[in-house]
Amino acid sequence: MAWEDRQGVYNFNPGPAALPEAVLRRAQEELPSYAGGGLSVLEMSHRSQAYDEIQARAQNGLRRLLGIPDTHRVLFLQGGASLQFAMVPLNFIPEGGAAGYVLTGSWSEKAYQEAERVGLRAAVAASTKEAGYRRIPDWSEVRDEPDWAYVHITTNNTIVGSQWHHLHPSLSVPLVADMSSDICSRPVRVEDYHLIYAGAQKNIGPAGVTVVIVREDWLGQAEEIAKARRLPTMLRYAVHAKNDSRYNTPPVFAVYLVALVAEWTLEQGGLSAMEARNREKADLIYGALDESDGFYQGVVEPGSRSWMNATFRIADPDVEKRFLEEARAKGFLGLAGHRSVGGVRVSMYNAVPVEACAKLREFMDDFRRRHR
Amino acid sequence: MAWEDRQGVYNFNPGPAALPEAVLRRAQEELPSYAGGGLSVLEMSHRSQAYDEIQARAQNGLRRLLGIPDTHRVLFLQGGASLQFAMVPLNFIPEGGAAGYVLTGSWSEKAYQEAERVGLRAAVAASTKEAGYRRIPDWSEVRDEPDWAYVHITTNNTIVGSQWHHLHPSLSVPLVADMSSDICSRPVRVEDYHLIYAGAQKNIGPAGVTVVIVREDWLGQAEEIAKARRLPTMLRYAVHAKNDSRYNTPPVFAVYLVALVAEWTLEQGGLSAMEARNREKADLIYGALDESDGFYQGVVEPGSRSWMNATFRIADPDVEKRFLEEARAKGFLGLAGHRSVGGVRVSMYNAVPVEACAKLREFMDDFRRRHR
Repeated sequence: MAWEDRQGVYNFNPGPAALPEAVLRRAQEELPSYAGGGLSVLEMSHRSQAYDEIQARAQNGLRRLLGIPDTHRVLFLQGGASLQFAMVPLNFIPEGGAAGYVLTGSWSEKAYQEAERVGLRAAVAASTKEAGYRRIPDWSEVRDEPDWAYVHITTNNTIVGSQWHHLHPSLSVPLVADMSSDICSRPVRVEDYHLIYAGAQKNIGPAGVTVVIVREDWLGQAEEIAKARRLPTMLRYAVHAKNDSRYNTPPVFAVYLVALVAEWTLEQGGLSAMEARNREKADLIYGALDESDGFYQGVVEPGSRSWMNATFRIADPDVEKRFLEEARAKGFLGLAGHRSVGGVRVSMYNAVPVEACAKLREFMDDFRRRHR
Repeated sequence: MAWEDRQGVYNFNPGPAALPEAVLRRAQEELPSYAGGGLSVLEMSHRSQAYDEIQARAQNGLRRLLGIPDTHRVLFLQGGASLQFAMVPLNFIPEGGAAGYVLTGSWSEKAYQEAERVGLRAAVAASTKEAGYRRIPDWSEVRDEPDWAYVHITTNNTIVGSQWHHLHPSLSVPLVADMSSDICSRPVRVEDYHLIYAGAQKNIGPAGVTVVIVREDWLGQAEEIAKARRLPTMLRYAVHAKNDSRYNTPPVFAVYLVALVAEWTLEQGGLSAMEARNREKADLIYGALDESDGFYQGVVEPGSRSWMNATFRIADPDVEKRFLEEARAKGFLGLAGHRSVGGVRVSMYNAVPVEACAKLREFMDDFRRRHR
């Protein structure tokens, strides 16, 4: 049976990433027939009552987990964060307007560049680029111009391995956040944000669905801008909101998995429990760095370390290469750093069990003793 | 076990629609671990060797099935046909240019309207709207202006239930086809088309992935137009082609299912075998109409009947309502006509077995005897 193949395999992939085994088991069991109806979710009409229920489960699950207030809508779109990089400015920056972007890594740069690529004015609200993105700025460093349509941040930076740990900003303009790689990893005050978006494939589901949480009273404005700009229908948030994410056929099976993952996360105790677990996992890995006497060199400053993606280098490139090879041979998968930066990256999203991090910690300590 | 729930259930949904049971069984079996690797396809990196293999299987499967020549690329995108409605004109109609649209039903109208919505000039190349879309035009009726960037057709019209049965046109301009609802249902000469697109959720997979087959030598031009027009990166075909559909994270699991469905279709004997099977199924249902002495009234003219979606009315609305109720109670699911037109629609895509149509035929004959 294929479940046995999973023994001794630890999925540290940066995304698409590990899903909870309980969710995979449920998906497997229900694959032939959802709720006794005789149809697989894979072949189910998006206009059926069964899908109405699935989508409501996914929405309500996220609402309960994140404490999403009634002021905000929950949408399921396609195209990933990459399409959001264009949709956010195209829908919310009015003609002649601008928006501010906080640059903390590659993905926030891409968001910023995409706003410019589609012909809109993006300004740098803050940047730690000169510091090699090794730290997250303080809110006091973030510029905030009254004529900006919004300020955009990336709450977790998967490539460099940094994360905002001091949210709750007080800005004079709307705040937009790309939470693709840390949504649902800890409690968050959704009411602080006008719009949150996240590709599902790290913490809340498989690749193929993008969650958008948006303040409803911001959508009227977006509708006007989108119309004047002659945006494609599929790029208009207001259209998706009006049609409850079913203007066209949604990615039914991916939304179903979001429902299962959200329900699993609630069963684990919700986001406070997730935060405690994620902190425990991060402590295991960063502990290996801090106790290695410089053998494992963390990439980012301690106060900006990501609980989702821990990044480090080993000074000798040959030893670093051997680390990755040995780790792979021992079943620790997905540890190579992003191709743009190299090194080692330990991605430990919600579904990565504490045990996997404990095993990796053992390996790291052992490897260091053998190679220092 | 959930497989038993499927006994006596006949999935005639218009899309998302039935998948082959052999494919569902394979997907279930492999769900915990793909190819012995210990990871589910649902949690697999799109940069992994395993996914390289999956995407190649999907591409090669479609290439073999459709006989796609080397001149054409096969892309896997998101956003469904609805996003293609915008991408096609935005990438291929140059500034000041136009394109021709053949109107044969709701979806072709939507494609036409979307070109205008995004500010481009769309002309009607032919239309059977005045005939209530009850027939497909002949190619001799299709206008073809030399300065049009392309002519766009919808090969199968899911809502009204009509289909082009005389393809192989000779036009002076590129031909673009929305084949969402009949791709792979019969052999087609891909070399006749500059671009073919199809949401996967009828004949080739689940909802959440869109197949685009495009002539490579048409992409350079698209790249120039997209750049000048400042299109979002995700709306540029040239970007997706250069990145082999991995500019951003693709819908990994949906592409995997396209691979399985393509391989299943090849095992059935390919598209000639599919055509024979689809003709047999269509003959069963249309036979019920033609032998009903007017009890079942076909919506479209016989020569334009779709082999994918057979539509008909029953003169007495109460009897029609009872037909749908009784059918549903007997396990025939998804037969209600589209909410915009009403009536009955029998969607019988590739994965619907002949047996399902034979059972429905029995029911139709029996119902008619009881209610005429």
